[in-house]
Amino acid sequence: MNKALTYLKLDQESITAVRGIKAAGVHCGLKKSSRDLALFYSESPAAAAGVFTQNLVQAAPVLLDRERINNPIRAVVVNSGNANACTGEKGMEDARQMADLAAAQLHLPPEQILVCSTGVIGMPLPMDKIAAGIASAAQSLSGERQAGLDAAAAILTTDTVTKTVVYRGDLPSGSFTLAGTAKGAGMICPNMATMLAFIFTDAAISRPLLNSLFREAVDCTFNAITIDGDTSTNDTALILANGAASVEITEGTPECDLFARLLHQVCQELAVMIVSDGEGVTKVITLEVTGAPDAAAARTLARTVLNSPLVKTAFYGEDANWGRILAALGYAGVPFDPSRVDIAIGPVRVACRGGAIPFDEAEAKAVLQQREIKVTVNLNAGTATATAWGTDLSHDYVSINSSYRS
Amino acid sequence: MNKALTYLKLDQESITAVRGIKAAGVHCGLKKSSRDLALFYSESPAAAAGVFTQNLVQAAPVLLDRERINNPIRAVVVNSGNANACTGEKGMEDARQMADLAAAQLHLPPEQILVCSTGVIGMPLPMDKIAAGIASAAQSLSGERQAGLDAAAAILTTDTVTKTVVYRGDLPSGSFTLAGTAKGAGMICPNMATMLAFIFTDAAISRPLLNSLFREAVDCTFNAITIDGDTSTNDTALILANGAASVEITEGTPECDLFARLLHQVCQELAVMIVSDGEGVTKVITLEVTGAPDAAAARTLARTVLNSPLVKTAFYGEDANWGRILAALGYAGVPFDPSRVDIAIGPVRVACRGGAIPFDEAEAKAVLQQREIKVTVNLNAGTATATAWGTDLSHDYVSINSSYRS
Repeated sequence: MNKALTYLKLDQESITAVRGIKAAGVHCGLKKSSRDLALFYSESPAAAAGVFTQNLVQAAPVLLDRERINNPIRAVVVNSGNANACTGEKGMEDARQMADLAAAQLHLPPEQILVCSTGVIGMPLPMDKIAAGIASAAQSLSGERQAGLDAAAAILTTDTVTKTVVYRGDLPSGSFTLAGTAKGAGMICPNMATMLAFIFTDAAISRPLLNSLFREAVDCTFNAITIDGDTSTNDTALILANGAASVEITEGTPECDLFARLLHQVCQELAVMIVSDGEGVTKVITLEVTGAPDAAAARTLARTVLNSPLVKTAFYGEDANWGRILAALGYAGVPFDPSRVDIAIGPVRVACRGGAIPFDEAEAKAVLQQREIKVTVNLNAGTATATAWGTDLSHDYVSINSSYRS
Repeated sequence: MNKALTYLKLDQESITAVRGIKAAGVHCGLKKSSRDLALFYSESPAAAAGVFTQNLVQAAPVLLDRERINNPIRAVVVNSGNANACTGEKGMEDARQMADLAAAQLHLPPEQILVCSTGVIGMPLPMDKIAAGIASAAQSLSGERQAGLDAAAAILTTDTVTKTVVYRGDLPSGSFTLAGTAKGAGMICPNMATMLAFIFTDAAISRPLLNSLFREAVDCTFNAITIDGDTSTNDTALILANGAASVEITEGTPECDLFARLLHQVCQELAVMIVSDGEGVTKVITLEVTGAPDAAAARTLARTVLNSPLVKTAFYGEDANWGRILAALGYAGVPFDPSRVDIAIGPVRVACRGGAIPFDEAEAKAVLQQREIKVTVNLNAGTATATAWGTDLSHDYVSINSSYRS
């Protein structure tokens, strides 16, 4: 009776495909030549949710956004090239002033504006450049596709490509769009990385439901990727839902399931793009832990393996070194029985019940020579599973991250 | 009235300087050409204590030694080149047989013999070679200096130098010797590293006191070093006290203080040797966390910083990148106030109260160009301190650890 719930990936679109969302990305001189200031604008107040870094050391914009995330939100102003982190009271003033400047340009109350920064740590923001950038971005705001791509470029640091994912959900009551853009967990010379993600939707959804669905999605996607295990002072993922489409998402409905599924999909695709564009990355590892007693244990085990330098260098060397995987599982701090563990690299079983089994080295090598490698660890101790994504550890990673700040 | 308690470092000696301790190191074919089987022998039963890997995946010899560590111990048989890990029931049988073979050669009960292995994971021990090696080692047992050096060589894997430290304590009642040898936490091609340490003393000391002092010493030394944060299936530190010197150590005496101090010193010097000889290491970092609310917090913070790939690559690049140090502190899982943290690299203060301060880049660079670098983090939140030792992360580390197993 109901029309089927369907969805479509819109490969050619940018985040401005979301109704009521405008964007701009300009150059204001924080980076040498590329765009370094982005503005995201919603034509109507949006419900917002945010997931922020767990690091004790939190940059000023993170502290500001935590205060404001429960407000109806109209705009997000983002700069790259300077993280405004470890900048003390002056940093808080500067973050507030960024919002104030955007508020003045957009004729909005400052408390409806969020702020993100990414880049060098410990340096004060050059506020004159920021002010000029915000004025210029406010003037360039547009709902055109290119404006979304400009904003996607302006948030980047050492990323080599922009990262945008757009999906449309089609419901009997109409269609909604979910779109996101992110920047990577590589590092900005000279300091640590920041992962920033901005998701937009024109579906109408209550703030509590949006918050709950976003946390679930982030936990299985952005929080399940690792490049080097270091977390940043600035990591932020935000979602804005402005209700500009005539579609309402309520809990426990098939529409809500579709929304949650597309939200997960957008976050996962952005997360894997971040991993794939990590510094010096030559391999993207998808690690699935199955047969676990619970999902939390599975997740901890998966992330610990993907953070092991010994595992990561083995993948760089295209080495089917299951002993390192087993040993990394062993220090994850999660109880399990090593003598029940099976490990497969692609389709090739390389360890069985915690011990060696004969396998075709050439077949394993062929899998390991691919850029994308699936590894499966079966604990044979339950039914829970978790997937995490990681990278190898290459010579280039060391080169990029050991280069001097100047 | 009492003669002062003094001590002396014996640079030219090996572990056979300890009275009643004999040693041998032979080649039996587990490694291509170098010595690969060591035997340590005490002429009288020794009180023993051991600290073993916390990894859930524990090699067969670790499981065997845990059963036997409370027995009076007469000998330790060690092979390099094969870890006897992830080898199942057969591995346990092989570990027991190693002890049985040594017992037969030395005319001792098998339960007075400990076993250690280090090397490749997941491969069965070639017991014919092991048997020949044990027979040959038993025949070569000697109290000569060279025999101790041969044993020190036979436990190595990818280490580039033997590691031996010998101290003599002089008490009014006589003198005692404390000597140790260790192998490094680098990796053996193709699998993970093992840290093995063997400490010997001719002092007479009860097993409970020895155990307590050894755990304290190990926790502040071998457990405070990190090369890549990966722990092995085989890590083992053993101490044997045979009482062959006419010196008795009892709790709460000045003699006990001297013994504890020398034990700490032997362990610390071996630990720093291990770090310095780590794979691809170009810098040895001594990180002191001061002003902490308690020692456990200080230790966790110090180890987290030294495990951060971003911190390690910055040291490789000789970059005074205090932002990475502060961010690593922030994700250690220990509460502290970032806005009170001071950081110094050598004598150069690079961050104050959680923020940037102007410093002489040339002066910092001069410190960072040294091989040994002292970093101080003051939390300004208490009086507890902890020291940990770590390394940089170099191109060579990646090269060594990505090389294919074959």
